[in-house]
Amino acid sequence: MDILSIIERKKTAKELTKEEIDYFIQNYTVGNITDYQAAALIMAICINGMTAEEIGNFTMSMAKSGDVLDLSDVAPNTVDKHSTGGIGNKITLILMPIVACLGAPVAKMSGRGLGITGGTVDKLQSIPGYRTDIDIEEFKNNVREVGISLISSSLNLAPADKKIYALRDCIACTNSIPLIASSIMSKKIATGAEHILLDVTCGSGAFMTKKEDAKKLAKMMSLIGKWTNKDVNCVITSMEEPLGYTVGNSLEVIEAVKALKGEMAEDVREIVLYMGAKLLELAGLGSNLKENKEKILEVLENGKAFEKFKEVVIRQNGDASYLDDLNKFEKAPFIMPIIADRAGYVKKIDARTIGEISIELGVGRKRKEDDVDHRTGIVFNKKVGDKVEKGDILAYVHANNEQIAIWAVKEIEEKAYKIVNNKVTKRNVILAVDV
Amino acid sequence: MDILSIIERKKTAKELTKEEIDYFIQNYTVGNITDYQAAALIMAICINGMTAEEIGNFTMSMAKSGDVLDLSDVAPNTVDKHSTGGIGNKITLILMPIVACLGAPVAKMSGRGLGITGGTVDKLQSIPGYRTDIDIEEFKNNVREVGISLISSSLNLAPADKKIYALRDCIACTNSIPLIASSIMSKKIATGAEHILLDVTCGSGAFMTKKEDAKKLAKMMSLIGKWTNKDVNCVITSMEEPLGYTVGNSLEVIEAVKALKGEMAEDVREIVLYMGAKLLELAGLGSNLKENKEKILEVLENGKAFEKFKEVVIRQNGDASYLDDLNKFEKAPFIMPIIADRAGYVKKIDARTIGEISIELGVGRKRKEDDVDHRTGIVFNKKVGDKVEKGDILAYVHANNEQIAIWAVKEIEEKAYKIVNNKVTKRNVILAVDV
Repeated sequence: MDILSIIERKKTAKELTKEEIDYFIQNYTVGNITDYQAAALIMAICINGMTAEEIGNFTMSMAKSGDVLDLSDVAPNTVDKHSTGGIGNKITLILMPIVACLGAPVAKMSGRGLGITGGTVDKLQSIPGYRTDIDIEEFKNNVREVGISLISSSLNLAPADKKIYALRDCIACTNSIPLIASSIMSKKIATGAEHILLDVTCGSGAFMTKKEDAKKLAKMMSLIGKWTNKDVNCVITSMEEPLGYTVGNSLEVIEAVKALKGEMAEDVREIVLYMGAKLLELAGLGSNLKENKEKILEVLENGKAFEKFKEVVIRQNGDASYLDDLNKFEKAPFIMPIIADRAGYVKKIDARTIGEISIELGVGRKRKEDDVDHRTGIVFNKKVGDKVEKGDILAYVHANNEQIAIWAVKEIEEKAYKIVNNKVTKRNVILAVDV
Repeated sequence: MDILSIIERKKTAKELTKEEIDYFIQNYTVGNITDYQAAALIMAICINGMTAEEIGNFTMSMAKSGDVLDLSDVAPNTVDKHSTGGIGNKITLILMPIVACLGAPVAKMSGRGLGITGGTVDKLQSIPGYRTDIDIEEFKNNVREVGISLISSSLNLAPADKKIYALRDCIACTNSIPLIASSIMSKKIATGAEHILLDVTCGSGAFMTKKEDAKKLAKMMSLIGKWTNKDVNCVITSMEEPLGYTVGNSLEVIEAVKALKGEMAEDVREIVLYMGAKLLELAGLGSNLKENKEKILEVLENGKAFEKFKEVVIRQNGDASYLDDLNKFEKAPFIMPIIADRAGYVKKIDARTIGEISIELGVGRKRKEDDVDHRTGIVFNKKVGDKVEKGDILAYVHANNEQIAIWAVKEIEEKAYKIVNNKVTKRNVILAVDV
């Protein structure tokens, strides 16, 4: 076997064998295959596609290219969730303490933000003292004792995927659905959870802008789940407007804490209730979604969900007094309102535009090595469908620099918000379930 | 314009503009575009193809990536010929002195051999003293005064092609007809000749093994000629058995000298007469091919063709006494016969097998940096169609090492020659003209 014959076969649209895929993944990971050879093969895959069997083998091969976490000594029925990316998505912070306090073991590794998509790790790190970098034994112990741990990954998870992902970015091969599906699934398989709920986002602020593409991606990931014996379920959600009331790191933690006390934006509530109920079902804790939702509402009301989050924070060295007194979070020095210059109804808050502005505010990173500012972001006063009077405050910009604040206000006014005369109906944020 | 959008467009089978192609070629040549980005684009071109316009632009862009020789101050109607490669192809050495002494100006740059295909430069260098590396002014002067010069190239000809050619070799993209056509034509355009006769070889010893592929390649190069205002004509020749009686460097020079004195193998005679007549036509020296062939036979008989070759050799510092006394060429130390083990007719002498054996003998190079042995090679006593008695000598191996000689004899016996009972008809070596 050699790489030239493998490239030649995929160039001529032949199906690669498991052995050929393993040969490529293993040798590329250790550097025996060059970037240009990998680029040629990846381009051939992009154009000629892969069969279901190839995608399954490609995923497993990437998953096994590095560490694979074994959670069997921690708990049965561990659950995980993953979103394919969005603006203002703080669902993990709210959802995981809820299902953990209802008995579903959560061993969750999250990532840092890159580009317009935020990362749970950056958000958690806005809680002073919170350690996302605890070691694997401590992580497992916390899951055993607290029922939940939220960390960044110190493991060498799917290094082949890391290399291929970086390469795809440089050769215009990011938008291949089989490659996106196998990239996500390889990491999820390596992190060891039994039951995985995937939130495939779709819209201007998501990677998939069209619903049919999101469906294709979801179906392909479910298929990979079957192929690799993982219990995978997908939900498709809209990412046309930012999720909830805030975009930012500490701003989203504050929103999450309020949500854990029951105070949620409509779109956040819809997702949290559905995904929470589904995760409980996947974990074998009740197959009636309606009953599961009632359990969730109960732990939001009686404070148990919030207490579970506090427990996580304390366990991982975070200063929990910030959760009790949200005013303790340091504020950005420049907070400026965006004022409606007309009356009407909010038709649109363009998620991509908001994402791009938030990067400039320091919420996210342009490049991996950039730092984020935990204080900055945007707070939405008016969401899509809301009635607006002239002079109303639509949103606030939280900035660390006056000039950027002024620029961001102007950008949001001109490019993100669209206000129309006619009444706008709020649409469901969940577009499809059990895909 | 950026490389990612160019790759994306070709990935989705769009036609690239002249500006996009120039952007890629120029930036890749100077290293502003990485090998892996070029690999992705080349793979997309391989799979999705190029339109006639794209191929023309790609060729011109590569031709212009380095030096472009201007022969307008040397002579009008300069001619050039090029073969797409074969085993035992010494046509340049015979053909070019013939047409030069009949008035067609020859300013020819040749290459060194690589892989199973020999190179004219290696053959010329087996004449002691012969300088293939004279500078461009001397080269032009020789063409002005002698009517012909045969050199290797000291110019930076089509450096983009060199880089892309080397890359294609590592990413299983060597067999793309548009890329082969533009690679050959870019170099031919850069070397400046007015009229170009291309010999597209086809068969086991050639790059194109099927006649229909050879035709496609020939048609594409003719098309590029039209597109770039070059007078291009193609002939397709068979490369199933090695051409003529010898494979080797000095061995082929000896055969060429004999040919210039009128003693030629049938296949060599067929090609020399046709291509010579055609080159004279292209140079405007007579449109009647039959009359042109008669002129050629005349200069072979009266010694003028041989004298012209001697003149080239003397001008370029070669020891012409070797041409007058062919015994002066140093012989390989081990010369061993291959003996027929049965009677019959020669059905086949497999060109590729002979090519592979000749590399082991030191005739050619496995890698660019290898040296060649000018003495070694194979001499054929019996060609396809010849009658053979048991015990006849089929061929001789000329080797620099006894073990290799023994090995080569066995290989040629077992793998190259095929002898059958029934009479074998010799077929024409020219398969198509004016393609």
